[in-house]
Amino acid sequence: MIFTVETSKSQEVVNITNLVRLYFKELLSSSNMSEGFLVLYNPHTTSSLLINEGSDASVSKDLINTLNRLIPFHNNYFHDKVDNNAHAHLKSSLFNSNLMIPFSDGRLLLGTWQSIFLLEFDGPRTRKIYMHLVPYTI
Amino acid sequence: MIFTVETSKSQEVVNITNLVRLYFKELLSSSNMSEGFLVLYNPHTTSSLLINEGSDASVSKDLINTLNRLIPFHNNYFHDKVDNNAHAHLKSSLFNSNLMIPFSDGRLLLGTWQSIFLLEFDGPRTRKIYMHLVPYTI
Amino acid sequence: MIFTVETSKSQEVVNITNLVRLYFKELLSSSNMSEGFLVLYNPHTTSSLLINEGSDASVSKDLINTLNRLIPFHNNYFHDKVDNNAHAHLKSSLFNSNLMIPFSDGRLLLGTWQSIFLLEFDGPRTRKIYMHLVPYTI
Repeated sequence: MIFTVETSKSQEVVNITNLVRLYFKELLSSSNMSEGFLVLYNPHTTSSLLINEGSDASVSKDLINTLNRLIPFHNNYFHDKVDNNAHAHLKSSLFNSNLMIPFSDGRLLLGTWQSIFLLEFDGPRTRKIYMHLVPYTI
Repeated sequence: MIFTVETSKSQEVVNITNLVRLYFKELLSSSNMSEGFLVLYNPHTTSSLLINEGSDASVSKDLINTLNRLIPFHNNYFHDKVDNNAHAHLKSSLFNSNLMIPFSDGRLLLGTWQSIFLLEFDGPRTRKIYMHLVPYTI
Repeated sequence: MIFTVETSKSQEVVNITNLVRLYFKELLSSSNMSEGFLVLYNPHTTSSLLINEGSDASVSKDLINTLNRLIPFHNNYFHDKVDNNAHAHLKSSLFNSNLMIPFSDGRLLLGTWQSIFLLEFDGPRTRKIYMHLVPYTI
């Protein structure tokens, strides 16, 4: 299954947990699995996927600020002569292109404080996310 | 299977390779698999999982020092007004919530120098780790 | 399947997409799968795997420069007294030891701009990469 996320800012930490749960239920209902892994894949090079604290949205601001401090928007990057978004490729390199979350009894086993995020580093854009189920043994 | 790791410091790089091998054997003996992937999942937002050099424990000290330099304990983080552990969420964001290690003939195919670590950034705490086996083809 | 990559510099971002496609086709032809995940595993502690922008090679230079700025070659690392490559372990810690890429109809579902890279931080060396196929449901 492929679903899309519309981002609205140049940089944004989008909590996609509810969206993922929605599509996960749909995917699960068309399978005969009750347990396994939900696998998300991000086919982009200026966005990423992340599992992190979701109950306090200020963590997301701290993340963007920290990344901007470590990887400034411009810093004599070679790629900026080609396309002005080197910082976005560099930031997304530090995160994952896929996530793997176990589920059991039809429920994602996210921890109490865990949410699933799309990290947008060069928006606004329409981002695609691939979603699949993988069986596990026992 | 879920197992727990007791951390003993505020920040700690805990080598869990032997513990993982122990539970992996148990999990394997109750399955009929001889090859596949061992998948570990960390349901927390201030700890992470990492595979890295394990034969010299000083690499772990260098990792903690480097992270403290890049992401200081306090740096006007918004989340510190809610809960005083923004740095721990930020550090754990840079690492994985899951690991996937191939095994064959009942043996984990870790490289010669690879060990499996739990990264604790807001301890001491009791950390849970989920462990599953995923089949592969060929 | 295990294949090797010969790196030629001390630090290098090697585009292995074509190599991976080649071995993936071979692996696929000996299986009966038409869809699933290709999983790559790096058994080393001074190299990593990364999916990132591949059409402009200058992104790779920006990545090496950025990592050298954030994690200098020498910085009173404890591990440098044992083996002079602490920076390489630290850099590789920030990236993945495995990648998981969906495929369908025998084709890897990499995004338009995505390439697969081996990140060498302590070369030149011969690097091994494990490659497996994992089925998915639906």
